[in-house]
Amino acid sequence: MASRVTLPTPPASELFMPSKPKLKITALAGGVGASKLLLGLYAEMDPSLLTIIVNTGDDIVLHGLKISPDLDIVTYTLAGIVDASKGWGFRGETFHALKRLAVYGRPNWFNLGDRDLATHIHRNALLSEGKTLSQAADSIRTALGVKSRVLPMSDNSVPTIIDSNEGPLHFQEYLVKRRAEPVVKKIRFAGVESARPAPGVLEAIRDADRILICPSNPLISIGPILAVPGIREELRANREKVFAVCPIVGGKSLKGPSDKMLAQLGHDSSALGVAKLYADFTGTFVIDPADKSQSAAISALGMKVAVLPTVMKTLAQKRNLPCALLSLSLPLFM
Amino acid sequence: MASRVTLPTPPASELFMPSKPKLKITALAGGVGASKLLLGLYAEMDPSLLTIIVNTGDDIVLHGLKISPDLDIVTYTLAGIVDASKGWGFRGETFHALKRLAVYGRPNWFNLGDRDLATHIHRNALLSEGKTLSQAADSIRTALGVKSRVLPMSDNSVPTIIDSNEGPLHFQEYLVKRRAEPVVKKIRFAGVESARPAPGVLEAIRDADRILICPSNPLISIGPILAVPGIREELRANREKVFAVCPIVGGKSLKGPSDKMLAQLGHDSSALGVAKLYADFTGTFVIDPADKSQSAAISALGMKVAVLPTVMKTLAQKRNLPCALLSLSLPLFM
Repeated sequence: MASRVTLPTPPASELFMPSKPKLKITALAGGVGASKLLLGLYAEMDPSLLTIIVNTGDDIVLHGLKISPDLDIVTYTLAGIVDASKGWGFRGETFHALKRLAVYGRPNWFNLGDRDLATHIHRNALLSEGKTLSQAADSIRTALGVKSRVLPMSDNSVPTIIDSNEGPLHFQEYLVKRRAEPVVKKIRFAGVESARPAPGVLEAIRDADRILICPSNPLISIGPILAVPGIREELRANREKVFAVCPIVGGKSLKGPSDKMLAQLGHDSSALGVAKLYADFTGTFVIDPADKSQSAAISALGMKVAVLPTVMKTLAQKRNLPCALLSLSLPLFM
Repeated sequence: MASRVTLPTPPASELFMPSKPKLKITALAGGVGASKLLLGLYAEMDPSLLTIIVNTGDDIVLHGLKISPDLDIVTYTLAGIVDASKGWGFRGETFHALKRLAVYGRPNWFNLGDRDLATHIHRNALLSEGKTLSQAADSIRTALGVKSRVLPMSDNSVPTIIDSNEGPLHFQEYLVKRRAEPVVKKIRFAGVESARPAPGVLEAIRDADRILICPSNPLISIGPILAVPGIREELRANREKVFAVCPIVGGKSLKGPSDKMLAQLGHDSSALGVAKLYADFTGTFVIDPADKSQSAAISALGMKVAVLPTVMKTLAQKRNLPCALLSLSLPLFM
């Protein structure tokens, strides 16, 4: 049976003059799937208390430049410069350089806009000067005025490789070039055994008041973060603080190919299927009312279950979920 | 006294049906100062018989990318994509990436357009894969449809350093950032002692029917090429074939700060001043009619003197100089 929990009521002063919650939040995030929730959190809390640990398994070297798509999606989103219709890249972007790269015979299946290229060039320059990916990410988010810390999961390169019916593919080749059409047989995070969490990652988990697992793809967005030695263990040690927002609603992905990938790898493409992947380190599993029927089964995995509208399409929905996740007074759980 | 020479008359068939001269031409070139003449040559001859040895002393690493301005100016010019009003960069260029690089606090005094960046990114990618600068230059000119060979003077990095009253400056800092305002005390080509001519450079000099020294800055465009061990010696050994077009007309540069730099370094800012710098390896020195009075003094240096209009502003002028330099029948010399 699912348990019903009421969190502490804030002091009366805060009821009269509602102030932003003073919780320290650490979020684990992929890219597009996470960004709506992150943007809501960023608006509804003191953003300097938010730390985001971002998947870098998607990172790829293209044209000699290290591209970190999820770091950039998160940073551009919070900076208010993202192309909201696509969820990535710059708003009002142009692609003059990419067209010329194609003239040189370079692959152009990965969209790199002119403004976006500046980010990759800057990151590449910093890396070539011996800076770390963390330092580059911090330079970028700071320059763009993002007040929350944006940490890569690791400064080591841990490319996500999709073993498919077409052979091994870098994740971006699978997702972007091949449009998630190949059948996934196995997902590997190359070199993850010797990777270390980026500086501040374990501390951000340990020191957080609440840890949010964003509704990102559990296999290839959250999965790589969990695979970095030490991170999953640290989450387990802080399990009561971990709130995971389910990215599957009514058996379908909120965004991207999570549902298909779950099915191809023998998992249930359902809230329960995701819950099973997260049960060891998650204290509270957040599901949409559409999946309320699964709450007992999820609860049986040893997690609390919170039922909250997780689909964020309207402005109200985009505020309500982050507000609820931050709330100290609303009865969150059932 | 200057000698008067008439070159052989072509066969009668060529007089009736004028065909492009079949001379193999090798040109030594900087960037903007050379490009008008090169474009004329390219149009007036079989361009596959033209080899251009380009100054790379101007090369600079910016934002982690190796920039080769003179190679690009020559290549863009011959490809017909150059911004003719500026003499460098792409026609109709945009600068979105550069503006964003400035947001990241990166220096933006060196103009890098969005389309142009693709060239630098492509070159950088090839270099990071272990290719040479020559191979990158060939990949770029081939992709852009340039039929002439474009060779860097060396695959080694030989940055031109201007020792000035403001201290040592990279040439681009001196020229672009500081607009050639500092007083030049000395010009150095860092590391040139151990540099080698790029593959094909010495052969292109040896095998040419005619070697042209373009009207580029003698100190910082032609100078670095001459400083690469072996090149000046090879020119000397082929001195009779070397035609140098003087970049100073009436005491003034055709383009750029040549006149000022010559004066600051104690040379005459005149055709004669340049002739003295070139006398050891030049067979024929080409001066403008404006400097006809210096022909005897130049001739006394042991060179033939050709008087030809070297200012190329009108379309006719842009054709006449290359045609004269290529011509087998016109009385070139006086």
